[in-house]
Amino acid sequence: MTTTARTRGPVRIVGAGLLGASIGLALRERGVEVVLADASKSALRLAVDYGAGRPAADDDAPALVVVAVPPEAVAEVVARELDTFPDALVTDVASVKSGILRELSEAGADLARYVGSHPMAGRERGGAVSARADLFLGRPWVIAPHDAVDPERLRAVEDLALDVGAAPRRMRPDEHDHGVALVSHVPQLVASLLAARLVEAPDAEVGLAGQGLRDTTRIAGSNPELWVQILGANAAPVAEILTALRHDLDQVLHALEHPHRIGAPRTVAEALVAGNEGVARIPGKHGQDRRFAAILVTVPDEPGELGRLLTEIGEEGVNMEDLRLEHSPGAQVGFAEIAVLPEAAHRLAAALEGRGWSLVEAKGSDA
Amino acid sequence: MTTTARTRGPVRIVGAGLLGASIGLALRERGVEVVLADASKSALRLAVDYGAGRPAADDDAPALVVVAVPPEAVAEVVARELDTFPDALVTDVASVKSGILRELSEAGADLARYVGSHPMAGRERGGAVSARADLFLGRPWVIAPHDAVDPERLRAVEDLALDVGAAPRRMRPDEHDHGVALVSHVPQLVASLLAARLVEAPDAEVGLAGQGLRDTTRIAGSNPELWVQILGANAAPVAEILTALRHDLDQVLHALEHPHRIGAPRTVAEALVAGNEGVARIPGKHGQDRRFAAILVTVPDEPGELGRLLTEIGEEGVNMEDLRLEHSPGAQVGFAEIAVLPEAAHRLAAALEGRGWSLVEAKGSDA
Repeated sequence: MTTTARTRGPVRIVGAGLLGASIGLALRERGVEVVLADASKSALRLAVDYGAGRPAADDDAPALVVVAVPPEAVAEVVARELDTFPDALVTDVASVKSGILRELSEAGADLARYVGSHPMAGRERGGAVSARADLFLGRPWVIAPHDAVDPERLRAVEDLALDVGAAPRRMRPDEHDHGVALVSHVPQLVASLLAARLVEAPDAEVGLAGQGLRDTTRIAGSNPELWVQILGANAAPVAEILTALRHDLDQVLHALEHPHRIGAPRTVAEALVAGNEGVARIPGKHGQDRRFAAILVTVPDEPGELGRLLTEIGEEGVNMEDLRLEHSPGAQVGFAEIAVLPEAAHRLAAALEGRGWSLVEAKGSDA
Repeated sequence: MTTTARTRGPVRIVGAGLLGASIGLALRERGVEVVLADASKSALRLAVDYGAGRPAADDDAPALVVVAVPPEAVAEVVARELDTFPDALVTDVASVKSGILRELSEAGADLARYVGSHPMAGRERGGAVSARADLFLGRPWVIAPHDAVDPERLRAVEDLALDVGAAPRRMRPDEHDHGVALVSHVPQLVASLLAARLVEAPDAEVGLAGQGLRDTTRIAGSNPELWVQILGANAAPVAEILTALRHDLDQVLHALEHPHRIGAPRTVAEALVAGNEGVARIPGKHGQDRRFAAILVTVPDEPGELGRLLTEIGEEGVNMEDLRLEHSPGAQVGFAEIAVLPEAAHRLAAALEGRGWSLVEAKGSDA
């Protein structure tokens, strides 16, 4: 089989769940030889049936081992693989990195051949049945170097990330763990804590909810079993960031409890301004992105109307950078908020009005 | 001029800013006579120029007065209007209600003719220049009854809400204030506190941000000056909810600081489960809405591609309940997550694949 891949096979994947099977599928598409191992025979057979690779055999001589087992088992399996395949580079794909490196170091593992990594991808359902060759497409894949590793080994894991369509980024394990605590683990907990306030609230109060509440609490719908593991494995950085957040919260709370004291409005204002500054640092496409201009169009709630709008935007030759729908329950119309480059906004707005669309121009707030 | 409106004019609007001028525009469209007053002559002229009504005259005899001045001035202006127009019903549109009623009661105002209200609508920019007749379309408009008011008066304010396209809902002032604290004011502060953690974070860590962080912090981009006023006017309910949230936060934080103690994982799990339960209570269309099935389609990042997709969904006769775009910076493809009724999902997925679209079926998570 010819290969267009950077990665040299055979690649041995230990753990044929969602991530392991998806890596197998993606590598097989590029013509890389993949062998699969899993403690569960049925999981292994399923991943083989889906085309993620062939079952491991005693005489396999893998160049690269990818450990994709549940978080608790990763360090032990990595150590075993390093022993079993003394010429192979071993990586893992767990979502927290420092603890694994520490356990391996304490166990006296050959760290020169270990590089931890973390593809920032997943799905709500696990298992090989949910695996996709395109799971990693366009997602960051963190490669976590440490002092004992050969730089050449880092490039081999970067090649793996590139071969499955991901964007590799080097970060030290502690830097990675602090980063995911900041952008993923703390937001998850904060969204859960915020949504928990709704559990015992009267229907009439919850019924006032707008897009702001929906956005801030969306990820509170995530799987608690998975998140207990992730938060447990990254407890220290998460606790550090939550402690800083609680400090700010206490200041705001004190100001709200004593609103007439000198300095109270300023304390609240400073928290809001800091929020402005923080959100402005987030890269990528999102509703409040200041690089883009927003056009709000009224869209009748009928099949095909939104499609017609977007087709007409395409006909105008304008690339839509982001789109958000807003729709009140029971209303006969919704709004499409379209983000475009500022230089295209005026022309597009005029063109859409010329085509009979009703524009509202700027997004409504929940206040 | 003929009218199709329920509201009997003339309606006097005091405060020709965004809300006042928008109410004027909407009522004028329905043929209701509107007179405008504003302490600023230039603001008044602007609103008149935009068609929101005619300037107030000494011999006006309004049936209804709508006070739409800045929050701090509302109680005083309502009291003055009740005195000046002894036959008129007076309402206001401020976003916090209890304090105004208390001030009016203390001032001995004729509360039988006062009903507070709150249209849940706004825009990021203020002033008559931003006013729109359709600002209130499909939005909740809370009518806040109290013991001293004649029930007939409540219906008159509900008629006003209906005439401008809003959905009236009755809530007591304290119930309203607690509700907006819960669904709007606390989420605003929590989003700001969360986003503030990003201010001093390294670029590489912020660079790991995904859709989860973008959603949880979007509203942290709101105007601090406006929000200092809103939070100050509703300090007590906001502080009450924040205190409960901090209690839960402290428990989770303690569990994360002592992850090996008995009960620690359970404490974290219970916070996450409560988040699940809370988010499930939010009405309306959103990504995690369990009433709908989600289909994730790969969309090339080119003008017109998304429009073509949505047009084809329309051609299949399927009504899209919600749509969310996901796009990694630098990636050549994005994903459109389409929410449809469960009974239509299978047929639509098959039809789209038949038309050559690549489906990913379920949304990726940030973990």
